[in-house]
Amino acid sequence: MAAFEIVLPVRFGQVDYAGIMFYPRFFENFHTAFEDMFGERLGMPYMSILKERRIGFPTVHIETDFRRPFRFGEPMRLVVDVTRIGRTSTTLRYRGFHGDEVEPSVEAHGTIVSIHLDTFETLEFPPDIRAVLEELAC
Amino acid sequence: MAAFEIVLPVRFGQVDYAGIMFYPRFFENFHTAFEDMFGERLGMPYMSILKERRIGFPTVHIETDFRRPFRFGEPMRLVVDVTRIGRTSTTLRYRGFHGDEVEPSVEAHGTIVSIHLDTFETLEFPPDIRAVLEELAC
Amino acid sequence: MAAFEIVLPVRFGQVDYAGIMFYPRFFENFHTAFEDMFGERLGMPYMSILKERRIGFPTVHIETDFRRPFRFGEPMRLVVDVTRIGRTSTTLRYRGFHGDEVEPSVEAHGTIVSIHLDTFETLEFPPDIRAVLEELAC
Amino acid sequence: MAAFEIVLPVRFGQVDYAGIMFYPRFFENFHTAFEDMFGERLGMPYMSILKERRIGFPTVHIETDFRRPFRFGEPMRLVVDVTRIGRTSTTLRYRGFHGDEVEPSVEAHGTIVSIHLDTFETLEFPPDIRAVLEELAC
Repeated sequence: MAAFEIVLPVRFGQVDYAGIMFYPRFFENFHTAFEDMFGERLGMPYMSILKERRIGFPTVHIETDFRRPFRFGEPMRLVVDVTRIGRTSTTLRYRGFHGDEVEPSVEAHGTIVSIHLDTFETLEFPPDIRAVLEELAC
Repeated sequence: MAAFEIVLPVRFGQVDYAGIMFYPRFFENFHTAFEDMFGERLGMPYMSILKERRIGFPTVHIETDFRRPFRFGEPMRLVVDVTRIGRTSTTLRYRGFHGDEVEPSVEAHGTIVSIHLDTFETLEFPPDIRAVLEELAC
Repeated sequence: MAAFEIVLPVRFGQVDYAGIMFYPRFFENFHTAFEDMFGERLGMPYMSILKERRIGFPTVHIETDFRRPFRFGEPMRLVVDVTRIGRTSTTLRYRGFHGDEVEPSVEAHGTIVSIHLDTFETLEFPPDIRAVLEELAC
Repeated sequence: MAAFEIVLPVRFGQVDYAGIMFYPRFFENFHTAFEDMFGERLGMPYMSILKERRIGFPTVHIETDFRRPFRFGEPMRLVVDVTRIGRTSTTLRYRGFHGDEVEPSVEAHGTIVSIHLDTFETLEFPPDIRAVLEELAC
Protein backbone atom coordinates (compact mmCIF):
# COMPACT_ATOMS: atom_id res chain seq x y z
CA MET A 1 0.00 0.00 0.00
CA ALA A 2 0.91 3.63 0.39
CA ALA A 3 -0.02 6.48 -1.89
CA PHE A 4 -3.11 6.30 -4.06
CA GLU A 5 -2.65 7.08 -7.73
CA ILE A 6 -5.05 7.98 -10.51
CA VAL A 7 -4.62 9.44 -13.99
CA LEU A 8 -7.04 12.16 -15.08
CA PRO A 9 -6.69 13.77 -18.50
CA VAL A 10 -7.22 17.52 -18.72
CA ARG A 11 -10.66 17.83 -20.27
CA PHE A 12 -11.71 20.08 -23.15
CA GLY A 13 -13.93 22.11 -20.82
CA GLN A 14 -11.39 22.37 -18.00
CA VAL A 15 -9.01 24.75 -19.74
CA ASP A 16 -9.47 28.50 -19.64
CA TYR A 17 -8.90 31.29 -22.13
CA ALA A 18 -5.14 30.94 -21.63
CA GLY A 19 -5.41 27.32 -22.82
CA ILE A 20 -4.35 25.80 -19.52
CA MET A 21 -6.25 24.03 -16.75
CA PHE A 22 -8.39 26.67 -15.01
CA TYR A 23 -7.00 26.54 -11.49
CA PRO A 24 -10.31 25.88 -9.66
CA ARG A 25 -10.66 22.70 -11.72
CA PHE A 26 -7.59 21.20 -10.00
CA PHE A 27 -9.58 21.08 -6.78
CA GLU A 28 -12.37 19.16 -8.52
CA ASN A 29 -9.76 16.63 -9.65
CA PHE A 30 -8.37 16.40 -6.11
CA HIS A 31 -11.86 15.59 -4.86
CA THR A 32 -12.37 12.98 -7.57
CA ALA A 33 -9.11 11.32 -6.45
CA PHE A 34 -10.23 11.55 -2.81
CA GLU A 35 -13.56 9.85 -3.60
CA ASP A 36 -11.96 7.10 -5.67
CA MET A 37 -9.25 6.52 -3.07
CA PHE A 38 -11.82 5.93 -0.36
CA GLY A 39 -13.91 3.69 -2.57
CA GLU A 40 -10.93 1.51 -3.40
CA ARG A 41 -9.22 1.42 -0.02
CA LEU A 42 -12.31 1.12 2.14
CA GLY A 43 -13.96 -1.53 -0.02
CA MET A 44 -17.24 0.38 -0.08
CA PRO A 45 -18.33 3.35 -2.16
CA TYR A 46 -17.35 6.74 -0.78
CA MET A 47 -20.98 7.80 -0.80
CA SER A 48 -21.93 5.13 1.73
CA ILE A 49 -19.79 6.91 4.33
CA LEU A 50 -21.84 10.03 3.81
CA LYS A 51 -25.26 8.58 3.08
CA GLU A 52 -25.42 5.68 5.48
CA ARG A 53 -23.00 6.70 8.20
CA ARG A 54 -23.67 10.45 7.91
CA ILE A 55 -19.99 11.33 8.17
CA GLY A 56 -18.49 14.11 6.06
CA PHE A 57 -15.06 15.64 5.57
CA PRO A 58 -15.18 19.36 4.82
CA THR A 59 -11.91 21.00 3.84
CA VAL A 60 -10.88 23.62 6.39
CA HIS A 61 -7.54 24.62 4.91
CA ILE A 62 -5.73 24.01 1.66
CA GLU A 63 -2.57 25.45 0.21
CA THR A 64 -1.47 24.80 -3.31
CA ASP A 65 1.54 25.46 -5.50
CA PHE A 66 0.98 25.52 -9.23
CA ARG A 67 4.43 25.05 -10.69
CA ARG A 68 3.81 24.11 -14.28
CA PRO A 69 0.56 24.42 -16.20
CA PHE A 70 -1.44 21.52 -17.59
CA ARG A 71 -2.70 21.87 -21.13
CA PHE A 72 -5.78 20.34 -22.76
CA GLY A 73 -5.37 16.60 -23.20
CA GLU A 74 -2.32 16.21 -21.01
CA PRO A 75 -2.76 13.33 -18.59
CA MET A 76 -2.41 14.37 -14.96
CA ARG A 77 -1.02 11.62 -12.77
CA LEU A 78 -2.46 12.45 -9.38
CA VAL A 79 -0.86 10.94 -6.27
CA VAL A 80 -2.61 11.18 -2.91
CA ASP A 81 -1.02 10.51 0.45
CA VAL A 82 -1.33 11.69 4.04
CA THR A 83 1.16 13.91 5.88
CA ARG A 84 -0.58 14.14 9.26
CA ILE A 85 -3.32 12.27 11.09
CA GLY A 86 -5.04 13.72 14.12
CA ARG A 87 -7.98 12.57 16.15
CA THR A 88 -10.60 14.49 14.16
CA SER A 89 -8.60 16.01 11.31
CA THR A 90 -5.99 14.95 8.79
CA THR A 91 -3.84 16.53 6.10
CA LEU A 92 -3.78 15.02 2.64
CA ARG A 93 -1.19 15.78 0.03
CA TYR A 94 -2.15 15.89 -3.64
CA ARG A 95 0.61 15.90 -6.19
CA GLY A 96 -0.08 16.19 -9.90
CA PHE A 97 2.62 15.06 -12.31
CA HIS A 98 3.13 15.40 -16.02
CA GLY A 99 3.59 11.80 -17.14
CA ASP A 100 6.45 10.06 -15.38
CA GLU A 101 8.24 13.16 -14.16
CA VAL A 102 9.50 13.08 -10.59
CA GLU A 103 8.84 16.73 -9.77
CA PRO A 104 5.16 17.49 -9.20
CA SER A 105 3.70 20.21 -11.42
CA VAL A 106 1.05 20.96 -8.82
CA GLU A 107 1.17 20.21 -5.11
CA ALA A 108 -1.52 20.78 -2.51
CA HIS A 109 -1.80 20.15 1.20
CA GLY A 110 -5.40 20.03 2.30
CA THR A 111 -6.73 19.59 5.82
CA ILE A 112 -10.11 17.99 6.30
CA VAL A 113 -12.13 17.56 9.45
CA SER A 114 -14.36 14.64 10.29
CA ILE A 115 -17.89 15.80 11.10
CA HIS A 116 -21.36 14.45 11.62
CA LEU A 117 -23.36 15.56 8.59
CA ASP A 118 -26.54 16.21 10.56
CA THR A 119 -25.02 18.40 13.26
CA PHE A 120 -21.75 19.51 11.61
CA GLU A 121 -20.02 18.67 14.92
CA THR A 122 -16.52 17.26 14.77
CA LEU A 123 -16.18 13.55 15.27
CA GLU A 124 -13.25 11.19 15.83
CA PHE A 125 -12.32 9.24 12.72
CA PRO A 126 -13.97 5.81 12.92
CA PRO A 127 -11.39 2.98 13.02
CA ASP A 128 -11.88 1.81 9.42
CA ILE A 129 -11.48 5.31 8.03
CA ARG A 130 -8.48 5.95 10.26
CA ALA A 131 -6.94 2.73 8.95
CA VAL A 132 -7.29 3.99 5.37
CA LEU A 133 -5.57 7.25 6.32
CA GLU A 134 -2.77 5.39 8.08
CA GLU A 135 -2.13 3.28 5.01
CA LEU A 136 -1.74 6.51 3.05
CA ALA A 137 0.76 8.00 5.51
CA CYS A 138 3.98 8.98 3.78
CA MET B 1 -43.90 43.07 -16.46
CA ALA B 2 -43.10 40.32 -18.90
CA ALA B 3 -39.76 38.74 -19.67
CA PHE B 4 -36.97 38.77 -17.11
CA GLU B 5 -33.60 40.02 -18.29
CA ILE B 6 -30.10 39.71 -16.91
CA VAL B 7 -26.64 40.32 -18.38
CA LEU B 8 -23.94 37.74 -17.64
CA PRO B 9 -20.45 38.18 -19.08
CA VAL B 10 -18.72 35.08 -20.38
CA ARG B 11 -16.18 34.27 -17.69
CA PHE B 12 -12.50 33.42 -18.13
CA GLY B 13 -13.10 29.89 -16.89
CA GLN B 14 -16.26 29.30 -18.94
CA VAL B 15 -14.60 29.09 -22.33
CA ASP B 16 -13.15 25.87 -23.67
CA TYR B 17 -10.11 25.00 -25.74
CA ALA B 18 -11.84 26.45 -28.82
CA GLY B 19 -12.05 29.81 -27.03
CA ILE B 20 -15.84 29.87 -26.88
CA MET B 21 -18.33 29.29 -24.09
CA PHE B 22 -18.22 25.57 -23.24
CA TYR B 23 -21.78 24.53 -24.02
CA PRO B 24 -22.60 22.97 -20.61
CA ARG B 25 -21.87 26.37 -19.04
CA PHE B 26 -24.87 27.89 -20.83
CA PHE B 27 -27.13 25.75 -18.68
CA GLU B 28 -25.46 27.08 -15.53
CA ASN B 29 -26.20 30.60 -16.75
CA PHE B 30 -29.82 29.64 -17.47
CA HIS B 31 -30.15 28.42 -13.89
CA THR B 32 -28.59 31.60 -12.52
CA ALA B 33 -31.17 33.61 -14.47
CA PHE B 34 -33.93 31.32 -13.21
CA GLU B 35 -32.85 31.81 -9.57
CA ASP B 36 -32.54 35.57 -9.90
CA MET B 37 -35.85 35.85 -11.72
CA PHE B 38 -37.68 34.09 -8.90
CA GLY B 39 -35.91 36.16 -6.26
CA GLU B 40 -36.90 39.39 -7.96
CA ARG B 41 -40.43 38.52 -9.05
CA LEU B 42 -41.48 36.60 -5.95
CA GLY B 43 -40.08 39.13 -3.50
CA MET B 44 -38.31 36.41 -1.54
CA PRO B 45 -35.06 34.59 -2.18
CA TYR B 46 -35.31 31.60 -4.49
CA MET B 47 -33.77 29.40 -1.80
CA SER B 48 -36.69 30.00 0.55
CA ILE B 49 -38.99 28.16 -1.87
CA LEU B 50 -36.73 25.13 -1.60
CA LYS B 51 -35.58 25.36 2.00
CA GLU B 52 -38.71 26.52 3.75
CA ARG B 53 -41.46 25.33 1.46
CA ARG B 54 -39.64 22.21 0.26
CA ILE B 55 -40.66 22.73 -3.35
CA GLY B 56 -38.24 22.05 -6.19
CA PHE B 57 -38.30 22.31 -9.98
CA PRO B 58 -36.24 19.65 -11.69
CA THR B 59 -35.77 19.99 -15.43
CA VAL B 60 -37.36 17.08 -17.28
CA HIS B 61 -36.71 18.21 -20.84
CA ILE B 62 -34.64 20.88 -22.48
CA GLU B 63 -33.80 21.59 -26.08
CA THR B 64 -31.29 24.17 -27.13
CA ASP B 65 -30.07 25.77 -30.33
CA PHE B 66 -26.60 27.24 -30.27
CA ARG B 67 -26.57 29.61 -33.25
CA ARG B 68 -23.56 31.79 -32.66
CA PRO B 69 -20.76 31.24 -30.17
CA PHE B 70 -20.00 33.48 -27.20
CA ARG B 71 -16.38 34.38 -26.65
CA PHE B 72 -14.58 35.23 -23.42
CA GLY B 73 -15.68 38.60 -22.06
CA GLU B 74 -18.68 39.02 -24.32
CA PRO B 75 -21.74 40.03 -22.33
CA MET B 76 -24.64 37.64 -22.73
CA ARG B 77 -28.01 39.32 -22.42
CA LEU B 78 -30.24 36.54 -21.16
CA VAL B 79 -34.01 36.89 -21.51
CA VAL B 80 -36.33 34.47 -19.71
CA ASP B 81 -40.02 34.04 -20.43
CA VAL B 82 -42.63 31.29 -20.33
CA THR B 83 -44.19 29.59 -23.34
CA ARG B 84 -46.54 27.18 -21.56
CA ILE B 85 -48.00 26.80 -18.08
CA GLY B 86 -49.58 23.59 -16.92
CA ARG B 87 -50.89 22.48 -13.57
CA THR B 88 -47.63 20.89 -12.40
CA SER B 89 -45.18 21.75 -15.18
CA THR B 90 -44.17 24.74 -17.24
CA THR B 91 -41.89 25.51 -20.17
CA LEU B 92 -39.43 28.36 -19.89
CA ARG B 93 -37.65 29.92 -22.81
CA TYR B 94 -34.10 31.21 -22.41
CA ARG B 95 -32.70 33.42 -25.12
CA GLY B 96 -29.13 34.67 -25.05
CA PHE B 97 -28.27 37.69 -27.16
CA HIS B 98 -25.04 39.35 -28.17
CA GLY B 99 -25.53 42.93 -27.00
CA ASP B 100 -28.60 44.55 -28.50
CA GLU B 101 -29.07 42.15 -31.38
CA VAL B 102 -32.60 41.01 -32.06
CA GLU B 103 -31.78 37.46 -33.11
CA PRO B 104 -30.88 35.24 -30.17
CA SER B 105 -27.48 33.55 -30.41
CA VAL B 106 -28.65 30.75 -28.15
CA GLU B 107 -32.22 29.65 -27.49
CA ALA B 108 -33.47 26.99 -25.11
CA HIS B 109 -36.88 25.65 -24.18
CA GLY B 110 -36.77 23.89 -20.84
CA THR B 111 -39.61 22.12 -19.09
CA ILE B 112 -39.59 21.93 -15.32
CA VAL B 113 -41.88 20.05 -13.00
CA SER B 114 -43.02 21.17 -9.60
CA ILE B 115 -42.23 18.55 -6.96
CA HIS B 116 -42.13 18.10 -3.23
CA LEU B 117 -38.44 17.90 -2.32
CA ASP B 118 -38.94 15.27 0.37
CA THR B 119 -40.97 12.83 -1.70
CA PHE B 120 -40.13 13.91 -5.27
CA GLU B 121 -43.86 13.68 -6.02
CA THR B 122 -45.34 16.19 -8.44
CA LEU B 123 -47.24 19.06 -6.95
CA GLU B 124 -49.51 21.78 -8.33
CA PHE B 125 -47.78 25.12 -8.59
CA PRO B 126 -48.71 27.18 -5.51
CA PRO B 127 -50.64 30.37 -6.44
CA ASP B 128 -47.76 32.82 -5.85
CA ILE B 129 -45.37 30.80 -8.01
CA ARG B 130 -48.02 30.37 -10.68
CA ALA B 131 -48.52 34.13 -10.68
CA VAL B 132 -44.82 34.66 -11.34
CA LEU B 133 -44.96 32.23 -14.26
CA GLU B 134 -48.07 33.94 -15.67
CA GLU B 135 -46.36 37.30 -15.59
CA LEU B 136 -43.56 35.78 -17.64
CA ALA B 137 -45.92 34.35 -20.25
CA CYS B 138 -45.01 35.56 -23.73
CA MET C 1 -18.04 -2.39 -32.72
CA ALA C 2 -21.05 -0.21 -32.21
CA ALA C 3 -21.98 1.96 -29.27
CA PHE C 4 -19.31 3.30 -26.94
CA GLU C 5 -19.86 2.76 -23.24
CA ILE C 6 -18.37 4.32 -20.14
CA VAL C 7 -19.35 4.32 -16.46
CA LEU C 8 -19.14 7.62 -14.59
CA PRO C 9 -20.16 7.81 -10.94
CA VAL C 10 -22.11 10.86 -9.81
CA ARG C 11 -19.56 12.95 -7.95
CA PHE C 12 -19.95 14.62 -4.55
CA GLY C 13 -19.76 18.04 -6.17
CA GLN C 14 -22.10 17.25 -9.06
CA VAL C 15 -25.29 17.08 -7.04
CA ASP C 16 -27.34 20.15 -6.23
CA TYR C 17 -29.33 21.27 -3.23
CA ALA C 18 -32.03 18.73 -4.12
CA GLY C 19 -29.42 15.95 -3.76
CA ILE C 20 -29.54 14.93 -7.42
CA MET C 21 -27.20 15.47 -10.34
CA PHE C 22 -27.37 19.18 -11.23
CA TYR C 23 -28.65 19.00 -14.81
CA PRO C 24 -25.84 21.05 -16.44
CA ARG C 25 -23.38 18.45 -15.15
CA PHE C 26 -24.90 15.79 -17.41
CA PHE C 27 -23.57 17.69 -20.40
CA GLU C 28 -20.08 17.67 -18.91
CA ASN C 29 -20.36 13.89 -18.61
CA PHE C 30 -21.56 13.64 -22.22
CA HIS C 31 -18.48 15.55 -23.32
CA THR C 32 -16.20 13.34 -21.25
CA ALA C 33 -17.72 10.30 -22.97
CA PHE C 34 -17.32 12.00 -26.36
CA GLU C 35 -13.62 12.70 -25.70
CA ASP C 36 -12.91 9.20 -24.45
CA MET C 37 -14.83 7.62 -27.33
CA PHE C 38 -12.71 9.45 -29.89
CA GLY C 39 -9.50 8.62 -28.07
CA GLU C 40 -10.34 4.94 -28.00
CA ARG C 41 -11.87 4.54 -31.45
CA LEU C 42 -9.48 6.79 -33.37
CA GLY C 43 -6.36 5.40 -31.73
CA MET C 44 -5.07 8.87 -30.95
CA PRO C 45 -5.94 11.30 -28.18
CA TYR C 46 -8.98 13.47 -28.83
CA MET C 47 -6.87 16.58 -28.26
CA SER C 48 -4.67 15.80 -31.25
CA ILE C 49 -7.66 16.32 -33.56
CA LEU C 50 -8.04 19.81 -32.16
CA LYS C 51 -4.44 20.77 -31.48
CA GLU C 52 -2.66 19.29 -34.46
CA ARG C 53 -5.38 19.11 -37.08
CA ARG C 54 -7.26 22.23 -35.91
CA ILE C 55 -10.64 20.59 -36.26
CA GLY C 56 -13.39 21.18 -33.71
CA PHE C 57 -16.95 20.01 -33.18
CA PRO C 58 -19.16 22.64 -31.60
CA THR C 59 -22.63 21.55 -30.54
CA VAL C 60 -25.31 23.39 -32.50
CA HIS C 61 -28.37 21.66 -31.11
CA ILE C 62 -29.09 19.31 -28.25
CA GLU C 63 -32.30 18.02 -26.77
CA THR C 64 -32.42 16.04 -23.60
CA ASP C 65 -34.97 14.10 -21.58
CA PHE C 66 -34.28 13.66 -17.90
CA ARG C 67 -36.50 10.77 -16.89
CA ARG C 68 -35.13 9.66 -13.56
CA PRO C 69 -32.69 11.53 -11.34
CA PHE C 70 -29.19 10.36 -10.49
CA ARG C 71 -28.15 10.62 -6.87
CA PHE C 72 -24.70 11.08 -5.38
CA GLY C 73 -22.57 7.99 -5.83
CA GLU C 74 -24.83 6.24 -8.30
CA PRO C 75 -22.88 4.95 -11.27
CA MET C 76 -24.11 6.32 -14.59
CA ARG C 77 -23.61 3.92 -17.46
CA LEU C 78 -23.30 6.20 -20.44
CA VAL C 79 -23.82 4.78 -23.93
CA VAL C 80 -22.91 6.85 -26.99
CA ASP C 81 -23.97 6.09 -30.54
CA VAL C 82 -24.80 7.97 -33.73
CA THR C 83 -28.27 8.42 -35.22
CA ARG C 84 -27.39 10.48 -38.31
CA ILE C 85 -24.24 11.28 -40.28
CA GLY C 86 -24.08 14.13 -42.75
CA ARG C 87 -21.27 15.63 -44.74
CA THR C 88 -20.34 18.26 -42.14
CA SER C 89 -22.60 17.44 -39.19
CA THR C 90 -23.72 14.43 -37.22
CA THR C 91 -26.14 13.61 -34.44
CA LEU C 92 -24.93 11.68 -31.42
CA ARG C 93 -27.19 9.99 -28.92
CA TYR C 94 -26.21 9.84 -25.26
CA ARG C 95 -28.12 7.51 -23.01
CA GLY C 96 -27.46 7.32 -19.28
CA PHE C 97 -28.61 4.23 -17.43
CA HIS C 98 -28.92 3.30 -13.79
CA GLY C 99 -26.86 0.11 -13.57
CA ASP C 100 -28.11 -2.59 -15.91
CA GLU C 101 -31.54 -1.17 -16.53
CA VAL C 102 -32.76 -1.22 -20.11
CA GLU C 103 -34.66 2.07 -20.03
CA PRO C 104 -32.36 5.09 -20.11
CA SER C 105 -32.79 7.51 -17.21
CA VAL C 106 -31.46 10.34 -19.34
CA GLU C 107 -31.37 10.58 -23.12
CA ALA C 108 -29.91 13.30 -25.30
CA HIS C 109 -29.60 13.85 -29.02
CA GLY C 110 -26.86 16.33 -29.81
CA THR C 111 -25.85 17.65 -33.21
CA ILE C 112 -22.29 18.74 -33.76
CA VAL C 113 -20.73 20.44 -36.74
CA SER C 114 -17.24 19.90 -38.04
CA ILE C 115 -15.36 23.19 -38.27
CA HIS C 116 -11.88 24.53 -38.78
CA LEU C 117 -10.80 25.92 -35.43
CA ASP C 118 -8.96 28.90 -36.91
CA THR C 119 -11.75 30.14 -39.16
CA PHE C 120 -14.82 28.49 -37.58
CA GLU C 121 -15.87 27.53 -41.12
CA THR C 122 -17.64 24.21 -41.61
CA LEU C 123 -15.59 21.38 -42.96
CA GLU C 124 -16.34 17.92 -44.28
CA PHE C 125 -15.56 15.17 -41.80
CA PRO C 126 -12.12 13.75 -42.62
CA PRO C 127 -12.29 10.04 -43.58
CA ASP C 128 -10.85 8.67 -40.31
CA ILE C 129 -13.29 10.67 -38.20
CA ARG C 130 -16.17 9.73 -40.48
CA ALA C 131 -15.20 6.08 -40.06
CA VAL C 132 -15.42 6.42 -36.27
CA LEU C 133 -18.89 7.94 -36.60
CA GLU C 134 -20.01 5.18 -38.96
CA GLU C 135 -18.89 2.52 -36.52
CA LEU C 136 -21.08 4.21 -33.92
CA ALA C 137 -24.15 4.27 -36.16
CA CYS C 138 -27.10 2.54 -34.53
CA MET D 1 -10.63 53.52 -3.16
CA ALA D 2 -9.21 50.49 -1.46
CA ALA D 3 -10.70 47.04 -1.34
CA PHE D 4 -13.07 45.85 -4.06
CA GLU D 5 -16.35 44.35 -2.91
CA ILE D 6 -18.95 42.20 -4.60
CA VAL D 7 -21.86 40.12 -3.34
CA LEU D 8 -22.34 36.68 -4.87
CA PRO D 9 -25.17 34.43 -3.66
CA VAL D 10 -24.41 30.74 -3.24
CA ARG D 11 -26.06 29.15 -6.25
CA PHE D 12 -28.30 26.08 -6.33
CA GLY D 13 -25.66 24.13 -8.27
CA GLN D 14 -22.71 25.27 -6.17
CA VAL D 15 -23.57 23.28 -3.07
CA ASP D 16 -22.50 19.69 -2.62
CA TYR D 17 -24.10 16.63 -1.07
CA ALA D 18 -23.45 18.10 2.40
CA GLY D 19 -25.58 21.11 1.44
CA ILE D 20 -22.73 23.61 1.63
CA MET D 21 -20.69 25.41 -1.00
CA PHE D 22 -18.47 22.78 -2.68
CA TYR D 23 -15.02 24.13 -1.87
CA PRO D 24 -13.68 24.29 -5.46
CA ARG D 25 -16.55 26.68 -6.27
CA PHE D 26 -15.07 29.31 -3.92
CA PHE D 27 -12.16 29.66 -6.32
CA GLU D 28 -14.55 30.28 -9.22
CA ASN D 29 -16.13 33.06 -7.16
CA PHE D 30 -12.69 34.51 -6.38
CA HIS D 31 -11.97 34.64 -10.10
CA THR D 32 -15.30 36.28 -10.84
CA ALA D 33 -14.44 38.97 -8.27
CA PHE D 34 -10.97 39.35 -9.79
CA GLU D 35 -12.42 39.82 -13.29
CA ASP D 36 -15.03 42.32 -12.15
CA MET D 37 -12.51 44.23 -10.04
CA PHE D 38 -10.24 44.75 -13.04
CA GLY D 39 -13.12 45.73 -15.27
CA GLU D 40 -14.29 48.36 -12.81
CA ARG D 41 -10.95 49.73 -11.68
CA LEU D 42 -9.18 49.70 -15.02
CA GLY D 43 -12.08 51.20 -16.93
CA MET D 44 -11.86 48.52 -19.61
CA PRO D 45 -13.12 44.94 -19.66
CA TYR D 46 -10.81 42.39 -18.07
CA MET D 47 -10.82 40.41 -21.30
CA SER D 48 -9.17 43.25 -23.21
CA ILE D 49 -6.03 42.81 -21.08
CA LEU D 50 -5.85 39.22 -22.22
CA LYS D 51 -7.18 39.46 -25.75
CA GLU D 52 -5.66 42.70 -26.95
CA ARG D 53 -2.61 43.07 -24.77
CA ARG D 54 -1.90 39.33 -24.46
CA ILE D 55 -1.16 39.55 -20.74
CA GLY D 56 -2.33 36.88 -18.36
CA PHE D 57 -2.14 36.25 -14.61
CA PRO D 58 -1.88 32.58 -13.73
CA THR D 59 -2.15 31.67 -10.06
CA VAL D 60 1.08 30.13 -8.79
CA HIS D 61 0.18 29.74 -5.14
CA ILE D 62 -2.99 30.01 -3.10
CA GLU D 63 -3.76 29.18 0.48
CA THR D 64 -7.24 29.22 1.86
CA ASP D 65 -8.95 28.90 5.22
CA PHE D 66 -12.55 27.78 5.22
CA ARG D 67 -13.83 28.80 8.64
CA ARG D 68 -17.58 28.65 8.31
CA PRO D 69 -19.57 27.01 5.54
CA PHE D 70 -21.83 28.85 3.12
CA ARG D 71 -25.22 27.32 2.49
CA PHE D 72 -27.40 27.52 -0.60
CA GLY D 73 -28.83 31.01 -1.06
CA GLU D 74 -26.61 32.73 1.48
CA PRO D 75 -25.10 35.89 0.03
CA MET D 76 -21.31 35.89 0.10
CA ARG D 77 -19.84 39.35 0.47
CA LEU D 78 -16.47 39.01 -1.19
CA VAL D 79 -13.77 41.60 -0.47
CA VAL D 80 -10.60 41.70 -2.56
CA ASP D 81 -7.44 43.58 -1.67
CA VAL D 82 -3.71 43.26 -2.17
CA THR D 83 -1.16 42.32 0.51
CA ARG D 84 2.02 42.44 -1.58
CA ILE D 85 3.09 43.88 -4.92
CA GLY D 86 6.26 42.80 -6.66
CA ARG D 87 7.68 43.56 -10.05
CA THR D 88 6.10 40.59 -11.81
CA SER D 89 3.91 39.03 -9.12
CA THR D 90 1.41 40.12 -6.52
CA THR D 91 -0.60 38.57 -3.70
CA LEU D 92 -4.32 39.14 -3.53
CA ARG D 93 -6.43 38.50 -0.50
CA TYR D 94 -10.00 37.26 -0.89
CA ARG D 95 -12.25 37.38 2.13
CA GLY D 96 -15.78 36.03 2.05
CA PHE D 97 -18.20 37.22 4.72
CA HIS D 98 -21.63 36.15 5.81
CA GLY D 99 -23.66 39.36 5.53
CA ASP D 100 -22.22 42.19 7.63
CA GLU D 101 -20.09 40.06 9.91
CA VAL D 102 -16.58 41.33 10.63
CA GLU D 103 -14.87 37.96 10.74
CA PRO D 104 -14.39 36.41 7.30
CA SER D 105 -15.89 32.95 6.86
CA VAL D 106 -13.39 32.16 4.14
CA GLU D 107 -10.02 33.77 3.55
CA ALA D 108 -7.55 33.15 0.74
CA HIS D 109 -4.18 34.56 -0.18
CA GLY D 110 -3.41 33.96 -3.83
CA THR D 111 -0.24 34.87 -5.70
CA ILE D 112 -0.47 35.57 -9.41
CA VAL D 113 2.30 36.18 -11.89
CA SER D 114 2.16 38.50 -14.84
CA ILE D 115 3.00 36.66 -18.06
CA HIS D 116 2.88 37.12 -21.80
CA LEU D 117 0.13 34.81 -23.03
CA ASP D 118 1.96 33.81 -26.19
CA THR D 119 5.26 32.84 -24.57
CA PHE D 120 4.20 32.29 -20.93
CA GLU D 121 7.27 34.34 -19.94
CA THR D 122 7.02 36.58 -16.91
CA LEU D 123 6.52 40.24 -17.54
CA GLU D 124 6.63 43.36 -15.39
CA PHE D 125 3.19 44.68 -14.53
CA PRO D 126 2.34 47.48 -16.98
CA PRO D 127 1.85 50.85 -15.19
CA ASP D 128 -1.97 50.94 -15.45
CA ILE D 129 -2.33 47.43 -14.02
CA ARG D 130 0.21 48.20 -11.30
CA ALA D 131 -1.82 51.30 -10.40
CA VAL D 132 -4.93 49.15 -9.94
CA LEU D 133 -3.03 46.81 -7.64
CA GLU D 134 -1.63 49.73 -5.63
CA GLU D 135 -5.09 51.13 -5.10
CA LEU D 136 -6.07 47.74 -3.70
CA ALA D 137 -3.14 47.61 -1.28
CA CYS D 138 -4.31 47.15 2.29
